[in-house]
Amino acid sequence: MSDSVKINRGLKGVYFERSGVSDIDGSAGKLWYRGYSIDDLAQHASFEEVCHLLIFGELPNAAELAEFDARLKAARSLPQPAFDMMAAMKDGHPMVVLRTVVSALPALETVRTDVTEEGFVEAGIRLTAQVPMIVAAHHAIRQGRAPVDPDPALGHAANWLWMLRGEKPSDNATRLADMDFVLHAEHGANASAFAARVTVGTEADLYGAITTALATLAGPAHGGAAEDVMKMVEEIGSADRAADYVAAKRKAREPVTGFGHRVYRAEDPRARHMRAAVERLSAEQGHSEWFDILQAVVKAMQPYARHGLNVNVDFYAGVGYQLHGIPRDLYVPIFAIGRMPGWIIQCLEQLRNNILIRPLTLYNGPEPREFVPLEKR
Amino acid sequence: MSDSVKINRGLKGVYFERSGVSDIDGSAGKLWYRGYSIDDLAQHASFEEVCHLLIFGELPNAAELAEFDARLKAARSLPQPAFDMMAAMKDGHPMVVLRTVVSALPALETVRTDVTEEGFVEAGIRLTAQVPMIVAAHHAIRQGRAPVDPDPALGHAANWLWMLRGEKPSDNATRLADMDFVLHAEHGANASAFAARVTVGTEADLYGAITTALATLAGPAHGGAAEDVMKMVEEIGSADRAADYVAAKRKAREPVTGFGHRVYRAEDPRARHMRAAVERLSAEQGHSEWFDILQAVVKAMQPYARHGLNVNVDFYAGVGYQLHGIPRDLYVPIFAIGRMPGWIIQCLEQLRNNILIRPLTLYNGPEPREFVPLEKR
Repeated sequence: MSDSVKINRGLKGVYFERSGVSDIDGSAGKLWYRGYSIDDLAQHASFEEVCHLLIFGELPNAAELAEFDARLKAARSLPQPAFDMMAAMKDGHPMVVLRTVVSALPALETVRTDVTEEGFVEAGIRLTAQVPMIVAAHHAIRQGRAPVDPDPALGHAANWLWMLRGEKPSDNATRLADMDFVLHAEHGANASAFAARVTVGTEADLYGAITTALATLAGPAHGGAAEDVMKMVEEIGSADRAADYVAAKRKAREPVTGFGHRVYRAEDPRARHMRAAVERLSAEQGHSEWFDILQAVVKAMQPYARHGLNVNVDFYAGVGYQLHGIPRDLYVPIFAIGRMPGWIIQCLEQLRNNILIRPLTLYNGPEPREFVPLEKR
Repeated sequence: MSDSVKINRGLKGVYFERSGVSDIDGSAGKLWYRGYSIDDLAQHASFEEVCHLLIFGELPNAAELAEFDARLKAARSLPQPAFDMMAAMKDGHPMVVLRTVVSALPALETVRTDVTEEGFVEAGIRLTAQVPMIVAAHHAIRQGRAPVDPDPALGHAANWLWMLRGEKPSDNATRLADMDFVLHAEHGANASAFAARVTVGTEADLYGAITTALATLAGPAHGGAAEDVMKMVEEIGSADRAADYVAAKRKAREPVTGFGHRVYRAEDPRARHMRAAVERLSAEQGHSEWFDILQAVVKAMQPYARHGLNVNVDFYAGVGYQLHGIPRDLYVPIFAIGRMPGWIIQCLEQLRNNILIRPLTLYNGPEPREFVPLEKR
């Protein structure tokens, strides 16, 4: 192999497929799901509407939404052995538990594992309903509480908060959770969706693909930033210390958590919606010290914004969860709940025009050498 | 985005990284693990030696081999809840069960989940020992037998057969299993190893990466070919019908299972070793009708060999497993047992020079459009 072969590290800038789902303009900081601006969707559409839009291509009318909602609600059940497994994994990380239970489901209940569009849609809707149940049930079990039964009167976001805590959530809390899911619903060929597509490329079923997506999302460089931002907020401690913190990080050439994104050069368009919601919630709770720290960090980072170092979606999310009293190891599972429709449609797109995804590595190891038998080594 | 953007479907021919592990010469049909020809390794090295070679870079001397072997044997244990989970998933596909139990392990026992080289090696060796145990234990449980305890007097391949059936394997059976593992141990950036690298790229731990690899290997276009070949053998029924079968397939423009490989244009160099071993075993068992069918298929496919349609490693494997009385749904798990060291070293290489793997899709969906509220749809 010659030295002229190009190595595309991280596959940065490499296009591997066309996709009709989300369009990202990284330099303008814009994001559309199937042509609709994330700004409109974040403000005016529910997570159920966005699921329908992503999976079926169009926003639902009232009848379609009712039907879709009924399908989601009908799928709100888990087989008993799933609860036993969660009890056995009580002290495990919630992402390990979620990944494991999703992986196990086809061995625990009768589900669609056919590698067809219909099979993927059916399994996908079922999993979209089950994933928040798994996260909430495991959290209840590890706290010594009985898992909370889903409430068919509640929509996806409200039911999630209900199952998580066993109390009816306020409208405001529901709105924030719903918007958080909408903002996280889909984001092109990010690492977890891409890995899921690699799994589908071998003609594996959707359970395999979602297991892969969950395993990949768990890495701190993908799903873990919200947690890291909250750690940073605590490390900084008060807004007046933010400038020194940022200066020290820049001097040490260390990244500042929550800034920068592989795709965005301008501000992540999802961030401003989280910012507004978190600001509102902070004021409401009379608890704005964390939000103030974030704003002070943004101000201190201003000089680097023209180098593309802007806040990403995870920057404000952590403080939002903290204000809701959600433990930190549930931040990534919440991301997963929101990302379900994006993973499903990415897998569907892969399936419709399927091909094995198999790039190459350029060999740089030892030259061919003679085998030496064990006794002569 | 302009139409001039190149779409690299399947990432065919795209290099994403350098690797010092295996070198494949697809047009000559040659394969080396760290400079050693697969021919030498298949004939003269045990799976344990090959694991050491792949993971640490060199074939072990006697002392190193003894130490490595002791580490593997010390890791032959599973936590009790893993057996309970397998009982709950008794009737599930063995790949679903394997993927689920591997995924669960960090929540069931104290293991290394640190994202460091040492952590990966430690967890990798432990998993290499545990994966065959999981496959064998689940198979025993679904047959209503008690799982067989590992035998520290036996090497990796012999112990696998012992745990699978509860009888000491013949030398010949052990040799075939050992060689099968060696031949499957590593193969560059194939879909499962690549998907595992995508998972490591997000700084996820080795358990996440191996879960991804297992989910990806399960797809019939990756790990499932041996099973499909055996189905084809039964469909053909006798050697004299092979030519008609191939002619009909070619006429219908359908692929013939076990032929062709994304990377090889010449015969897969692993195939000839499987062929020789399976031929020997067929003769020994006085049961050569399946092998004869395979040979007749190869003969009928001869005219297409110059187009790169040669047998791949899975072509002979299925008949080998069938001769050993191994049920078909264990063929892919056997592939997984062999591939463990390859996955581990690919993950280690990724970690050493880690980067988020995130390619792009080119948007071809609707143009930006105005949001219409639910009541007006």
